[in-house]
Amino acid sequence: MSDLKDYLADRATEVDAALDAFLPSKRQRPSSLHDAMRYSLFAGGKRLRPVLALAAAEACGGEKEDALPAACAVELMHTYSLVHDDLPSMDDDDLRRGRPTCHKVYGEGMAVLTGDALLTEAFLVLSETKPTPRYPTSAFIAELAITGGSTRLIGGQVLDLEGEGRDLKKAELVRIHEAKTAALLTSSLRLGAMSANATPAKLEAITSFGYHLGLAFQVIDDILDVTQTTEKLGKTAGKDEAVSKATYPAVLGLENARKEAAKLTRKAMEALGPFKKSGDRLRQIAAYLLERDY
Amino acid sequence: MSDLKDYLADRATEVDAALDAFLPSKRQRPSSLHDAMRYSLFAGGKRLRPVLALAAAEACGGEKEDALPAACAVELMHTYSLVHDDLPSMDDDDLRRGRPTCHKVYGEGMAVLTGDALLTEAFLVLSETKPTPRYPTSAFIAELAITGGSTRLIGGQVLDLEGEGRDLKKAELVRIHEAKTAALLTSSLRLGAMSANATPAKLEAITSFGYHLGLAFQVIDDILDVTQTTEKLGKTAGKDEAVSKATYPAVLGLENARKEAAKLTRKAMEALGPFKKSGDRLRQIAAYLLERDY
Repeated sequence: MSDLKDYLADRATEVDAALDAFLPSKRQRPSSLHDAMRYSLFAGGKRLRPVLALAAAEACGGEKEDALPAACAVELMHTYSLVHDDLPSMDDDDLRRGRPTCHKVYGEGMAVLTGDALLTEAFLVLSETKPTPRYPTSAFIAELAITGGSTRLIGGQVLDLEGEGRDLKKAELVRIHEAKTAALLTSSLRLGAMSANATPAKLEAITSFGYHLGLAFQVIDDILDVTQTTEKLGKTAGKDEAVSKATYPAVLGLENARKEAAKLTRKAMEALGPFKKSGDRLRQIAAYLLERDY
Repeated sequence: MSDLKDYLADRATEVDAALDAFLPSKRQRPSSLHDAMRYSLFAGGKRLRPVLALAAAEACGGEKEDALPAACAVELMHTYSLVHDDLPSMDDDDLRRGRPTCHKVYGEGMAVLTGDALLTEAFLVLSETKPTPRYPTSAFIAELAITGGSTRLIGGQVLDLEGEGRDLKKAELVRIHEAKTAALLTSSLRLGAMSANATPAKLEAITSFGYHLGLAFQVIDDILDVTQTTEKLGKTAGKDEAVSKATYPAVLGLENARKEAAKLTRKAMEALGPFKKSGDRLRQIAAYLLERDY
């Protein structure tokens, strides 16, 4: 376990260094924009998605260096979606990762542009991925663009906004979480595996792992929003209920939501069948995510 | 001239058909989002940027079909930037291409997401470009991402917002217009030329042509904002002055702004030196843009 914590910390440090080297410096014009991009990106996030990309590459026998552009790209995509989701015209959140949200610090127009710039940078860094025999550059770009696009990440946010104040059925809730959370977690793993030239069978296993892990992760996030304090979360607690947002605890009840998280995590583990010892790191990470205090 | 008008209309029709085939249909979920994307994209724009991409490909001896993904990508990028620039937190515009702006029809949060989705689609369609011997897929993606990124398109919008109400010098104004307008026009031409596997010398000539044409185009836009009616423009006339935005007529005076436009267009024409008869279409388009009633 302390081995895992070291692993997670080391990988996060590597990703941070790569992001820092990749992003324009604060001194580059317009400095206000580059400052806002770095404020949002270097806010002490856990770097879960990039770490999953690197771990998937290693599980498929690749070098983590080859997965670094993909790892940076998914974190840029994730951060842009947080900056835009937090906007007053959307979830209207003041706090993120324990600090004032981008629009609270830099203003609303600047926060829109900061998100736009982070999104655009995601594709720039991803274009630096070395193509492999099975996966040309276009496969990497299409993977991220489909995941980030109107039917997944952005579509999920639309369904989420449209669902506020309505009673959602479980199937609708699953559809939102598939699109919003599971899709990007899955793509993080897939991009890492692709950078390692994964066989189709291994890529499929990684995909199923990501899907179930992503849903489990979101169920746990929903539970934590109910059971934890704002201080511990680093974002406003109880927010979902305050805006009548459908969550797993609200739809299933807290106890059933916990069972759902455990079931999804078990399915994620089973998906890793084709990986023997090489899948242990991914198993550890999945177990670690389930062990969060929810 | 009527030959040119037919050419422009035919190419615009081809681009519209390609965009229509590429975008998710309105029936796909979330239908509200896909509806908003199509509302903004199919608003009767002139398709200037995609037409330039196709014309540059033809000038470099390529097939226009090979330039279609790039042509669609630059129009998606252009439309996203309009949707976000029109937001209340930015230029706060109610009218675009003669119709209510996206956020007036769909609401502000949805307009942010619509822009995000159009931007993301730009990279998806661009990933379908066939790589050429000189230009791998990564070169196309990097071209669009750098142009759309924090130092060009988005950076220019930041400088523009920060410049409102201040007296800008000509050099500052040129920097904004280089970043906001000239960069995307230039990239439209460059991507088309790259899809035709242009030689480095021809790509350089196309780049200089685009830079001067793009600046000329923006000077003319500034002039039209002063001299024309809202009805004729299809967007709010006199808007620049109302928000104390720096423009060429404001900084140079109307007569000098007209001279500047003519000078820039002449430089654009000179840049096409390496193209003999194959550059005639690009020359015609540049002349046509200068002949707008300004």
